Amino acid sequence: MKFMSDNAAAVHPDVWSAMLAADSADSPYDNDALSRELDAAFTQLFGRECAALWVATGTAANCLALAAMCAPHGAVVCHREAHIEVDEAGAPGFFMHGAKLILAEGAHAKLTPEAVAAVVEPIRDDVHQVQPYAVSITQASEYGCVYRPGELAALSGYVKERGLGLHVDGARFANAVAHLGCAPAEACAGADALSFGFVKNGGLGAEAIVFFDPEMAHVVRYRRKRAGHLQSKGRFMAAQILAMLDDGLWLTNARAANAAASEIAAAAGARLLHPVEANEVFLSVTAAERAALRAQGFEFYDWGADAARLVTAWDADGDHVAALAGAIEAL
Amino acid sequence: MKFMSDNAAAVHPDVWSAMLAADSADSPYDNDALSRELDAAFTQLFGRECAALWVATGTAANCLALAAMCAPHGAVVCHREAHIEVDEAGAPGFFMHGAKLILAEGAHAKLTPEAVAAVVEPIRDDVHQVQPYAVSITQASEYGCVYRPGELAALSGYVKERGLGLHVDGARFANAVAHLGCAPAEACAGADALSFGFVKNGGLGAEAIVFFDPEMAHVVRYRRKRAGHLQSKGRFMAAQILAMLDDGLWLTNARAANAAASEIAAAAGARLLHPVEANEVFLSVTAAERAALRAQGFEFYDWGADAARLVTAWDADGDHVAALAGAIEAL
Amino acid sequence: MKFMSDNAAAVHPDVWSAMLAADSADSPYDNDALSRELDAAFTQLFGRECAALWVATGTAANCLALAAMCAPHGAVVCHREAHIEVDEAGAPGFFMHGAKLILAEGAHAKLTPEAVAAVVEPIRDDVHQVQPYAVSITQASEYGCVYRPGELAALSGYVKERGLGLHVDGARFANAVAHLGCAPAEACAGADALSFGFVKNGGLGAEAIVFFDPEMAHVVRYRRKRAGHLQSKGRFMAAQILAMLDDGLWLTNARAANAAASEIAAAAGARLLHPVEANEVFLSVTAAERAALRAQGFEFYDWGADAARLVTAWDADGDHVAALAGAIEAL
Amino acid sequence: MKFMSDNAAAVHPDVWSAMLAADSADSPYDNDALSRELDAAFTQLFGRECAALWVATGTAANCLALAAMCAPHGAVVCHREAHIEVDEAGAPGFFMHGAKLILAEGAHAKLTPEAVAAVVEPIRDDVHQVQPYAVSITQASEYGCVYRPGELAALSGYVKERGLGLHVDGARFANAVAHLGCAPAEACAGADALSFGFVKNGGLGAEAIVFFDPEMAHVVRYRRKRAGHLQSKGRFMAAQILAMLDDGLWLTNARAANAAASEIAAAAGARLLHPVEANEVFLSVTAAERAALRAQGFEFYDWGADAARLVTAWDADGDHVAALAGAIEAL
Repeated sequence: MKFMSDNAAAVHPDVWSAMLAADSADSPYDNDALSRELDAAFTQLFGRECAALWVATGTAANCLALAAMCAPHGAVVCHREAHIEVDEAGAPGFFMHGAKLILAEGAHAKLTPEAVAAVVEPIRDDVHQVQPYAVSITQASEYGCVYRPGELAALSGYVKERGLGLHVDGARFANAVAHLGCAPAEACAGADALSFGFVKNGGLGAEAIVFFDPEMAHVVRYRRKRAGHLQSKGRFMAAQILAMLDDGLWLTNARAANAAASEIAAAAGARLLHPVEANEVFLSVTAAERAALRAQGFEFYDWGADAARLVTAWDADGDHVAALAGAIEAL
Repeated sequence: MKFMSDNAAAVHPDVWSAMLAADSADSPYDNDALSRELDAAFTQLFGRECAALWVATGTAANCLALAAMCAPHGAVVCHREAHIEVDEAGAPGFFMHGAKLILAEGAHAKLTPEAVAAVVEPIRDDVHQVQPYAVSITQASEYGCVYRPGELAALSGYVKERGLGLHVDGARFANAVAHLGCAPAEACAGADALSFGFVKNGGLGAEAIVFFDPEMAHVVRYRRKRAGHLQSKGRFMAAQILAMLDDGLWLTNARAANAAASEIAAAAGARLLHPVEANEVFLSVTAAERAALRAQGFEFYDWGADAARLVTAWDADGDHVAALAGAIEAL
Repeated sequence: MKFMSDNAAAVHPDVWSAMLAADSADSPYDNDALSRELDAAFTQLFGRECAALWVATGTAANCLALAAMCAPHGAVVCHREAHIEVDEAGAPGFFMHGAKLILAEGAHAKLTPEAVAAVVEPIRDDVHQVQPYAVSITQASEYGCVYRPGELAALSGYVKERGLGLHVDGARFANAVAHLGCAPAEACAGADALSFGFVKNGGLGAEAIVFFDPEMAHVVRYRRKRAGHLQSKGRFMAAQILAMLDDGLWLTNARAANAAASEIAAAAGARLLHPVEANEVFLSVTAAERAALRAQGFEFYDWGADAARLVTAWDADGDHVAALAGAIEAL
Repeated sequence: MKFMSDNAAAVHPDVWSAMLAADSADSPYDNDALSRELDAAFTQLFGRECAALWVATGTAANCLALAAMCAPHGAVVCHREAHIEVDEAGAPGFFMHGAKLILAEGAHAKLTPEAVAAVVEPIRDDVHQVQPYAVSITQASEYGCVYRPGELAALSGYVKERGLGLHVDGARFANAVAHLGCAPAEACAGADALSFGFVKNGGLGAEAIVFFDPEMAHVVRYRRKRAGHLQSKGRFMAAQILAMLDDGLWLTNARAANAAASEIAAAAGARLLHPVEANEVFLSVTAAERAALRAQGFEFYDWGADAARLVTAWDADGDHVAALAGAIEAL
């Protein structure tokens, strides 16, 4: 019974169908009919003009977006536990040619205007110090917590006032939108670019970088190729994304994952280390308790010495979830 | 009737089957059972210890391999018409952090020891000049021509004597082996690293970087992630490659593509600009002749003012090939 | 009465003399007779084989040294207030091609083995996380505090055990040696490379990068040129450094600067924020007190809201120092 | 009798005086009074608003200027024998974060609009190919030849029409202006940035980067520091440059160097490989002839198998020059 990572979840049957259907010879790279539909599909989804590019990974999506927003001699502010800081092997430094990440604090891996200001305001505007160009937040956050529209408004207000760009790492953007029950545009209001994740949510290997200023996408088309991310059979990348957007599959899947996490959260009660607003559950559990859970067949990651991370996916098995909830309650 | 690019060819049914079969939850990234088979699979194929990593594109394969062989302040020698120089959007400069490509000449886009020496020997060993670290050749070359084992021996002899590394861009390595009828190891003898292409030959989006010194792969595992090329559902990458290696599918496919090109070449006779040794045919044809061919439904690229490039793929339609051969003969 | 920065101090007359004496035509770059003496001069000073290169700035010295010790996909551990993190405009990211600085804590801007371990040990050795390659410390530290030989032994013991490199930013190395009264080699024991500063201590525009493994200098010779730091009239760079080393001028100057700082420190008593072990004094003083000092003609930097930094130099004016000491006492 | 390189020439006494005079404590970096005069000094010299920054070397000047004009994924067109291509150790790739140099041909190391077009026009505007951002020329060229105002007008006309930037490497700009006898602005008409060299012409270690669009200098101020090129005692850098500009010393010196070269050229007659328009003489001389010259005490560089390069400087000794002219005539 796997609760390790949504990265390991299955590919949704509709995604497979779309990929198989895309397998007629077409123009290579992103000149195929499906890739050419992406801009319109996201424009419709967000209710404003967008430009969208597929890439294979969230790391590529994040870092190509950030490189479009930050000069090599600049910096991006992010949370100390942001994926770009902790889990991307230094990719931001690579794609941004040495630009820096400035680390800010915040409960539940979320940033506030105050938290950003606390690291930005002390920077003297002189040539000895690296100047900030952008802020990157994660929606839902690395602890499965979701920014409310009001929080986004406050944050992007400060960000814009300082003349910075705003990037949203949306590896679990679908889960955030499912939780908020709002329009997708509201869940990333103020963003200049969004890394919209599909792989954890039923896709195979395609994420979208969505630019809300389509002009910003221009340079990224060159940079995507330069980073070896322009796949020659791009039609299969676009097919995945379009299948996920079709009929709201992305939202349906995210709701399923969230519901499973909620069921576990309800059982966990006071053990919860963070509010469960997406598909991740962080539990306070001793080593002995973790061993007990594993003995019952549950797989998950340790999270430091006294905690565990449990992740649900779109294809969570209801019986497994119920069993886990029961097991946690019984600890 | 498409003869534009093997990039646009279909995915082989066995590759699809293998991918579908891989869709049970497994460990993410390259910790899955299939990815862990890769080293052994290539070790067997090449009859010597190899380490192999999947990546989505040939550009990523080439540039990650080169970055493992060349310091940021160094240079890689390649042919003036090498794919890494002409068609990768500056990716070598990106992955190698500013290292240089030094361009050498040679008929049919192939390098000789003399051609390499002509650009390497004039370099003074002083700090003002960029020092060479490696040589990259393409097998089969950008003009569809194949290095013979003797040619490779001469070239790698010089390369080793100069203390340089040797990289082989094998986007069409399968076609080269099919043409030579030799063991795979003989078709890249002397290489330190091979970009082994599968996408043009029936794959969907997976190439292999094969290191003949497994130690070299170590740093590349970090760099692959840093470049955003470590896909989380890596099992589908490995599945494609293993399906291509299984039962020699890669060779069967390449033979089919080569045979189609040979049939066209036989019809083209004196119009051939390069020997046809793989799956590409470069023809001397006027604009009017190209128009005539297109009027009959054949699609292909112009190659400058007086030539055309025609590419066949593993799934070449026999009727289309025969029709094209006839049409060329009738010009 | 200037106590802003030793950066602004005068050039020592012996340095001027040496420069003027060097102005006969000689070979350009570092092929002149003086530059060729550097290795031997530092070998003698440190009592072990060294290779030494001149560069114009401490930033260049630090970053060229670090780039020789850390791969582009790696990281260097330094103090949160290290000059390389705070005041070098992102130069480490530039010279190291995107490698990261990992920030550690420690009183008086000094690192301990525990402080380094606290940031290094949590790093998982997997490809998602940036791996440490080296540790950089500052001797004397950014707060004018000095590592004792025993502290260096403990730190370098841990560093070597972890297989890391050790770099010493010695912008004020002379002041540290003057304070310790030990052999120069003891003041940087365990270091692989030392940025040995002269500009703040009577030089004009020359610092030395000293490698205790001369082999490490090889690649840096190429990288120095690649960074535009190989001056064509290098004889003037070497002349400065040799003049500073001659007859212990570097130590004489540093002692003078330290003595001035000690005199101020003695007057400051409980106002001192850090022990005064070099030529910097950090004082707890209110805005009103700072205004009072400035009204008497003393120039210095504010250090946050309630403190000031006062720096003495080799050419500190005894009357000014006495006046400042008196003024502080009288506050 | 040294004719190796103007790099090895002496520092002009006025430059020494200015440096010595600058040695009163002042603000560090470029906040001193002299550095703040630079913009105005060059504005007056060129008769239009300029922003100017000092750096220690021509390589730094060239590459900081180019990095302000070319994105990391772009390219700069230069002559195959340009200093930035041949003699800067890959610095352009470093400062421009992997951007490419595209090599064009041209007699006497000069570019024409046709030569630039020959390499620029074939570049397809698609993401697979590196797009040009700027053109860099050298005035006087690497063969000591000078662009006439009409040549510059034609070249910059094409460059602007293509939307590219124009950089002038003016390591020997003074010699070019001296030869042309025109206003400095005419000798670099159409340029966006000029690396104005002083070191070969009587300076010690200071060159100027002059931006004709002052706005372009903004980002370079940060990048100069990031490259370790912001010297803390910057007053000595500015002092050198201002001394060279004062009373036209730069022009006086260049005229002296040019006159010496002309005297040699007159003696060399048909042996000249390039017109002598600055301070470099390229001679057709056999190995035996070179040996004969050296036997008489003349020092110079071989230039391939059958030629020599002789360089004169501002402080050329009249007797040495006459002796050399005589010796060449007598060959």
